Amino acid sequence: MLDSIQIVKPADIEKRSMEIITSELNGRTWPDPEFGIVKRCIHTSADFDYADNLCFSENAAKLGMEAIKRGAHIVTDTRMAWSGINKKKLESFGGQAHCFMSDEDVAAEAKERGCTRAAICMERGAALEGEVIFAVGNAPTALIRLYEMIEAGQVKPALIIGAPVGFVNVVESKELIMKAGIPFIVPRGRKGGSNIAATICNAMLYQI
Amino acid sequence: MLDSIQIVKPADIEKRSMEIITSELNGRTWPDPEFGIVKRCIHTSADFDYADNLCFSENAAKLGMEAIKRGAHIVTDTRMAWSGINKKKLESFGGQAHCFMSDEDVAAEAKERGCTRAAICMERGAALEGEVIFAVGNAPTALIRLYEMIEAGQVKPALIIGAPVGFVNVVESKELIMKAGIPFIVPRGRKGGSNIAATICNAMLYQI
Repeated sequence: MLDSIQIVKPADIEKRSMEIITSELNGRTWPDPEFGIVKRCIHTSADFDYADNLCFSENAAKLGMEAIKRGAHIVTDTRMAWSGINKKKLESFGGQAHCFMSDEDVAAEAKERGCTRAAICMERGAALEGEVIFAVGNAPTALIRLYEMIEAGQVKPALIIGAPVGFVNVVESKELIMKAGIPFIVPRGRKGGSNIAATICNAMLYQI
Repeated sequence: MLDSIQIVKPADIEKRSMEIITSELNGRTWPDPEFGIVKRCIHTSADFDYADNLCFSENAAKLGMEAIKRGAHIVTDTRMAWSGINKKKLESFGGQAHCFMSDEDVAAEAKERGCTRAAICMERGAALEGEVIFAVGNAPTALIRLYEMIEAGQVKPALIIGAPVGFVNVVESKELIMKAGIPFIVPRGRKGGSNIAATICNAMLYQI
């Protein structure tokens, strides 16, 4: 029964996986930091739709990587994405990963104001000192609140990773954030998720 | 710009999403706890492939839910899946969610024995007192080690959620675990992930 299992050293599994992905992309390619992001999203999901749906504003990955090198923070709307981000690597450049979703005062304020915790979470991120990359893996309302704050001149993110997943307002919130005039990386359409938001962050971290 | 956004109360978003998923499944249906799992996997990934790839051994979801009600633990191979599992709900039945992946002694033992941390993590889970559900969202080696331990009579899991994702040994490890004679829920093929492993756990928790 165990005969079908290939003997591959743990360290070689990722390399082999990336070779398989590159080969199945049939010669399709992207400029360098973007290509790394496309491959890693496929690696995380085994879903080649990410080769078609990922949208990058001009030099988005490069701008994100430069911000990280200057010590930018990453703010995310889910604990799962926060867990997935390589925090040791991020902290080696001086930044930190933040998720305010389970803070008690965030829940209280969301209830009082009748909005989502994710929206408040983005406001907390906007109040941080220094540069901020927002990595949204769940809530369209986070992207909508970011858009409103950008329009009002209250925040100027270094980069927005707009990867909520789902069926209600997800498509629309992504289209909105791509028009905010801020560097973005967005899997267009319904797909995305905490795993995708985290993996895009890590793909940038690993390519610095 | 904000005109395209539907006004939906946070509490109604999940309900609306499930209606959309049900409608796009075009009348396809499953027995009850399984249907909830299929829908929630699609909800988490926006990927209808889960309607085709999810495999359930007989009564797998029911058996898992009964084990949870008796206080079964859930052991997972990723911090992201651990983060995603509704631990409050699980703990209300007496069980706990465990992930041993970042334990220092696990890393040391894996290095010493030349195997993966995920394999050791499964051994730690097998040593827990009481019933255990294993929820694998990343490492094929976790499923392979579980299979070996089951064959050797060293562990008898209440349920195995076999959802590693990727390109090397993933397909094979899933086929293997489905032959172990233990109740299973497995998205056959390459797809899966921490988000899917966690969402299958939560789909059971929410249907109890």
